[in-house]
Amino acid sequence: MTAEIVSVGTELLLGQIVDTHAAHMARILAGCGISCTRRATIGDNMDRLVATLKESLSRADVLITIGGLGPTVDDITRDAIAIALDDELEEVPEVADRLRKFFATRNIRMADSNLRQAQKPKCGRQIDNPNGTAPGLLCEKDGKVVIALPGPRGEFDPMATGYVRQYLEHLQGGQVIHSRVLRIAGMGESSVEELIRHLMDAENPTVAPYAQPAEVHLRVTARAATREDADLLIDPVVEQIRSILGNHLYGFNDTTLEAATIELLKKAGETVAVAESMSGGSLSARLTSVAGSSQVFLGGAVVYTVATKVALLGIPEELIREFGPVSEEVAKAMAVAIREKLGATYGVAVTGNAGPTADIDNKPVGLAYIGLATPEGVSVDQAKYRGIREDIQRRSTQTALNLLRNEILR
Amino acid sequence: MTAEIVSVGTELLLGQIVDTHAAHMARILAGCGISCTRRATIGDNMDRLVATLKESLSRADVLITIGGLGPTVDDITRDAIAIALDDELEEVPEVADRLRKFFATRNIRMADSNLRQAQKPKCGRQIDNPNGTAPGLLCEKDGKVVIALPGPRGEFDPMATGYVRQYLEHLQGGQVIHSRVLRIAGMGESSVEELIRHLMDAENPTVAPYAQPAEVHLRVTARAATREDADLLIDPVVEQIRSILGNHLYGFNDTTLEAATIELLKKAGETVAVAESMSGGSLSARLTSVAGSSQVFLGGAVVYTVATKVALLGIPEELIREFGPVSEEVAKAMAVAIREKLGATYGVAVTGNAGPTADIDNKPVGLAYIGLATPEGVSVDQAKYRGIREDIQRRSTQTALNLLRNEILR
Repeated sequence: MTAEIVSVGTELLLGQIVDTHAAHMARILAGCGISCTRRATIGDNMDRLVATLKESLSRADVLITIGGLGPTVDDITRDAIAIALDDELEEVPEVADRLRKFFATRNIRMADSNLRQAQKPKCGRQIDNPNGTAPGLLCEKDGKVVIALPGPRGEFDPMATGYVRQYLEHLQGGQVIHSRVLRIAGMGESSVEELIRHLMDAENPTVAPYAQPAEVHLRVTARAATREDADLLIDPVVEQIRSILGNHLYGFNDTTLEAATIELLKKAGETVAVAESMSGGSLSARLTSVAGSSQVFLGGAVVYTVATKVALLGIPEELIREFGPVSEEVAKAMAVAIREKLGATYGVAVTGNAGPTADIDNKPVGLAYIGLATPEGVSVDQAKYRGIREDIQRRSTQTALNLLRNEILR
Repeated sequence: MTAEIVSVGTELLLGQIVDTHAAHMARILAGCGISCTRRATIGDNMDRLVATLKESLSRADVLITIGGLGPTVDDITRDAIAIALDDELEEVPEVADRLRKFFATRNIRMADSNLRQAQKPKCGRQIDNPNGTAPGLLCEKDGKVVIALPGPRGEFDPMATGYVRQYLEHLQGGQVIHSRVLRIAGMGESSVEELIRHLMDAENPTVAPYAQPAEVHLRVTARAATREDADLLIDPVVEQIRSILGNHLYGFNDTTLEAATIELLKKAGETVAVAESMSGGSLSARLTSVAGSSQVFLGGAVVYTVATKVALLGIPEELIREFGPVSEEVAKAMAVAIREKLGATYGVAVTGNAGPTADIDNKPVGLAYIGLATPEGVSVDQAKYRGIREDIQRRSTQTALNLLRNEILR
């Protein structure tokens, strides 16, 4: 069974609002095992909307519209659906009465256009909207289903996750599509793909890579009668991928690299402190974004100048003058100093040049040294990142977290 | 002139990511005075993508695709455009060489699929991508224009707002819709709206408020023959708003509060250092996200535990034990200590409880103290923020930056 989603509203075509409803509806369809094959966005223009609805109905089994059900003349979805289904609108007397009462009890004169909300295509029925004046619509005709949902979030969300999800689950008769996202650090997208390409030809579950900022995600998706059955199909594929990628696979679904690292520290009963130059506090910020991080993250120093490296960390000024702030030696000294100063198991240090110019220390933009001090000693990784300042900072914290993670797992 | 946008990616149809790029591109088109009449979203499916591209080309003058330009077999946009334009792909030798060098200098074996990124339709040219390996595409054929943009944000944003916007403005050469965004800190959306409501009835320029995380934006939009003419309509309205909102108006368009603050510090020849507990490094991260911040931001301490406050800042342990880490007294001590330790003009401190539980110091979630030490003394603001952990951290850094900004402007 396939579905298409049509979002209606000129404000969407102008980019004034982002279409989060369509993404939400897409997740609901996926969860019901219905394949969403296409989405479209149309402005408040009757000809274009009718044409788009007809095209969608010629292809898909289920058509879902979002928006354009309100009382104003701009709200054309109801009329467009009736035309696309070759049907007519009729008024539902009880709904018209309810609207009249709604305005009367609030002592507001009702604009006549409000009564349009009491209309429905003759072949369809209305979906109750306890959170607004515009009911939804559900039409079944010639083997096709059309569902119209209102645009305001407080009306859309409950109707979509409530009645409509149940209806769709029933319609589909039980099959679900269920995904698990595998999160991978320390490898590029093409390297990951090369190693697991033989798994990408399978049809159930499917395996697909996608690049995320400074990491790679693999989505494993199965079709089955229930979510539990889908998990049984997904589990062995995940195990295969794990045996290929090893520790590069750091977590699942919404687990971030910082959350995975904090979790490992908690389990090991160990702590970390950080000293940041290039990353400017963003490594600390990532660690402290995790609720409960205060158990294992002791704190850090953001040492953005030579004088600050001396004042906060006690790094000898001569060392910095001799090798430059962007150097292996200074990265080591920073990691060791913060580890000792705060009494942490691990000290992590980031120094480098995030750009946009090569003015710091005359080192090229993107060059970075990541230091890691442990109870056994101190090591440094050199890296060369591409991208804008934000990317370079992000990648440096990704390397730092991943080095720490691998050290804990060692 | 009309345009359509086609976003490519199964992850969009599954609702796993929200399509913010399409909204961004829609705003750019609107800004160029080009009517975006339709948007579509297609998965990684060649037949459907080619069919959709052909349909769009039959209707619109300009077709913009987003995503699917990367190196993997899932990345089918390049091939689909060639088919839809009835053209063939050819390799651009210099780009292929650049790719080989890119991998060679990083000592990574290049998967062969990477070379697909060196291909372009014969009728088109590539758009340089300084932030990634996949160039964009620009094809002009039979009076139609096809532009293909890469999906990763760090590559999409600069290409869309840079080369592509300029190209489209030139292409349109007629009326433009031009906006200026006014950024406001320290006031809520309804307070702003109440003060400027009389300006919101105008038609050219229009004035519309948008609530953003922890701040408010006002968009002033004018239609005119050129961008310069539009600016002449916008200028007096901006002056009216400035006279009403005063220093609450901190910047325009993409100027962030951190960038505005760094700019003020530079002009005043002053410096700042920060001590963060609750904000966990995110205040430092915001300041250092600004290119050139190292001239005025000396550094900071992320003091997430009592012991760290003592070790890095020398705050007396008795003081913390007496008043608790979330207190006016500790906020003051942190601000004074970091200012003195780093020899900065200003010391800013953030302490509070970001949640999710009230376990720190038994202070309620959302309670925060923001300290500001200046050459004249030290003051503290108490705040109570609402929202989840991330909101609370963000709001605390917003208050801190705004306090500092108002102090410099005093």
